[in-house]
Amino acid sequence: MQRVTASLRELAGALPPGAKLPSSRRLVADLGVGPVTVQRAIDSLVADGTVVTRPGAGTFVARATRTATVDTAWQRVALGDSPVRSEGVLAALTVPDHGVLDMARGYLDLSLQPSSRLASAMARAARRPEAWTVPPPAGVPELRTWFAQQLGADREDVFISPGGQGALSTVLRSIVPAGSPVLVAVPGYPGVISLLRSAGLVPVPVPTDTDGVRPELLERAFEQSGARMLYLQPTYANPDGSLLSADRRRPVLDIAAKAGAFVVEDDFARWLGHGPTAPPALLRDDTDGRVITVNSLSKVSGPSLRVGCIVSRGPVAQRIAGLSFVDHLIVARPLQEAAVELVTGAGWNAHLRALSAALGARASTLSTELARQLPGCSFHRPRGGFSLWLRLPRGTDDLELARRTRERGLVVGPGRHYVVAEDDATHLRLCYAAITEQHIPTAVGILADSL
Amino acid sequence: MQRVTASLRELAGALPPGAKLPSSRRLVADLGVGPVTVQRAIDSLVADGTVVTRPGAGTFVARATRTATVDTAWQRVALGDSPVRSEGVLAALTVPDHGVLDMARGYLDLSLQPSSRLASAMARAARRPEAWTVPPPAGVPELRTWFAQQLGADREDVFISPGGQGALSTVLRSIVPAGSPVLVAVPGYPGVISLLRSAGLVPVPVPTDTDGVRPELLERAFEQSGARMLYLQPTYANPDGSLLSADRRRPVLDIAAKAGAFVVEDDFARWLGHGPTAPPALLRDDTDGRVITVNSLSKVSGPSLRVGCIVSRGPVAQRIAGLSFVDHLIVARPLQEAAVELVTGAGWNAHLRALSAALGARASTLSTELARQLPGCSFHRPRGGFSLWLRLPRGTDDLELARRTRERGLVVGPGRHYVVAEDDATHLRLCYAAITEQHIPTAVGILADSL
Repeated sequence: MQRVTASLRELAGALPPGAKLPSSRRLVADLGVGPVTVQRAIDSLVADGTVVTRPGAGTFVARATRTATVDTAWQRVALGDSPVRSEGVLAALTVPDHGVLDMARGYLDLSLQPSSRLASAMARAARRPEAWTVPPPAGVPELRTWFAQQLGADREDVFISPGGQGALSTVLRSIVPAGSPVLVAVPGYPGVISLLRSAGLVPVPVPTDTDGVRPELLERAFEQSGARMLYLQPTYANPDGSLLSADRRRPVLDIAAKAGAFVVEDDFARWLGHGPTAPPALLRDDTDGRVITVNSLSKVSGPSLRVGCIVSRGPVAQRIAGLSFVDHLIVARPLQEAAVELVTGAGWNAHLRALSAALGARASTLSTELARQLPGCSFHRPRGGFSLWLRLPRGTDDLELARRTRERGLVVGPGRHYVVAEDDATHLRLCYAAITEQHIPTAVGILADSL
Repeated sequence: MQRVTASLRELAGALPPGAKLPSSRRLVADLGVGPVTVQRAIDSLVADGTVVTRPGAGTFVARATRTATVDTAWQRVALGDSPVRSEGVLAALTVPDHGVLDMARGYLDLSLQPSSRLASAMARAARRPEAWTVPPPAGVPELRTWFAQQLGADREDVFISPGGQGALSTVLRSIVPAGSPVLVAVPGYPGVISLLRSAGLVPVPVPTDTDGVRPELLERAFEQSGARMLYLQPTYANPDGSLLSADRRRPVLDIAAKAGAFVVEDDFARWLGHGPTAPPALLRDDTDGRVITVNSLSKVSGPSLRVGCIVSRGPVAQRIAGLSFVDHLIVARPLQEAAVELVTGAGWNAHLRALSAALGARASTLSTELARQLPGCSFHRPRGGFSLWLRLPRGTDDLELARRTRERGLVVGPGRHYVVAEDDATHLRLCYAAITEQHIPTAVGILADSL
């Protein structure tokens, strides 16, 4: 096959752009191989851009891509100031160079991803006849049921979304109009801060500590801003792993009720606890449809299983569904079916236990090493999630520090992306999702050297 | 397996909610089957909601779902008027009852969908080791190359998006701020009209005829509205199959240039022509990065392959990419890889030829029947796409007519969803994507009876 592909590539190279290649029949005869081999070789050349096929006409040498420069200066006038704020998000998506230790991204390393289980689930799902038909708009029933049970919700209140980010994008844009303030528990997830700004909403920071949102500050923030929506991560927040303590749950909901506001609960880390079980979702304490809970499977199954859910009750549920249809139409059915296969399949619970144990071990090692090598920094040991929030010595520039560690072979997350306004100290987010336990001491060593 | 599942279901039914089931080992012994069989049976019961499993704890009878009613009246005050407009979109997603003839939805019937080819492509893609890793942010290279060749663009200008709807949502929201007017060629796609309104943008209608947008009306619309963006479908538009004629292409671009505006080209129907090839995309005539072209594979491969592309050049390309990251993060890699496998695989061109032939035959039959049975209506025979735009007799109410045909066993698309403001006449959109050729005369008969 390689030989045939190489021969065809040579042939195409010798012909001018746009020239027609000999017919398949002719190539079979000339090259002395079967028609399937010829077809596969042509497919290869189509995929890498050497030839194009035109239905009913044949195979042609691809024309060289245009290299003429185009004057697009007029666009800057038309576009004006951009509402889109994506730097924090892009930083978390950028794949580090080979050999660089990764404490910047929240994606599990391959040893923790259930890749073969995912592949099997996908293959099984893809072969089901209904897998490629239009799914019910609210999602495949078995998947809605599963999310409902995991969260303690009614199945009818569960709406399947295309991943956590798509879910948050829809929820945040469907409730309050552009220009409105939205309270954001900080430090928080940059993807949400970007979403809010890109939608013309105004994020208002509400500080948290290791027990989550601080109620007295929350009350003041609602009063001062008039916001009608609060976004928080009560369970193993990104970046600091904080947990909304039991005694703060009711006060937070009561304060939101007094403000006539919605509470958007980002529950993405539910299965990332380092112990056996996570606290119940905040929606379990919700008595008047105030809490909208967003969850997704990406963190425990892999960045490509973009399947999540939105749990909401009352009129807001229809509005969310309406905007989701308008934005996405539907969530690809094969992905939903693969998700069902995966989470109800044998070994799923074992996978989650192994994941918890590995993340817990990494958090332990990281905490020990930081205490040992960086006495000038402070942090709270996280009880779940995939990141630790490290407070830096007074006056340290987080971006500059991140640049120095990068030069020495370690990528980390500058803290400024995780807060809305100025912070009272500078921080780094240190992810332990991708980095393996054995590399953590080295990584901390690099950090120590860079400080 | 069924027997074991039934036994377990009976067992669970006899226990109170929350009670723990016997261990797997015990069940294996009691039921006299292997552990894999027991596990599969339990998986079944998890999937349909009878039991829940908790990692490290066991399998438990599911608690009954809450049935307490919740007072959500406060939400109506908090939500206010909804910007979300989703009726037109929902209508196109609603699956008609069994036995009802479907001329309402633009999804291909199963005989035309390449389902088994899709399933194989997906299965092959899912088993590739890199299929579940984070893809490059702009998309898998082979897929970008393929789209680039199909559209005559540079690969570097191609950005992979999660389907056409996601692409349009991102593009339309990233360019002009809320409150801005956007010109929309009408009759047009309800999904875009809904998107614009939901984003707080103001759709301004620009009439088309069978040769596409009318330049003199376009010029006037730009002058009167001050809009800086035009959305159109130059190639086999939905709903009327119109084609932007060759002599109008340059004038449309010049008029947009004079207005300092972007032109968003929706090229979703590229491969739905009834003849051998479609006209080139409008971007081929673009000399200053004015045209942003959106395309997707959904129409020719199935509603669940939510993979598309956005082609743009200049500063606007970065803004579009930024908002796409913020809204979606990435497009699931297995879907991208499956798309590559599908479109470069053997038989793809044959599939497209068969599709064109079938759609052309249906369009022919539909045109003949309409001319024969409904002389009081008029239309232009479409040269591509999957729908025909039928002009109704003066004074006919489109919604009322759709209701009457529905009662008689035929669903159609009321024309009001496809125009922005009042139309000079009422219309129906008649899709021939789902209905097979043999049923068309019956369907037209129902329409004739209903009129």
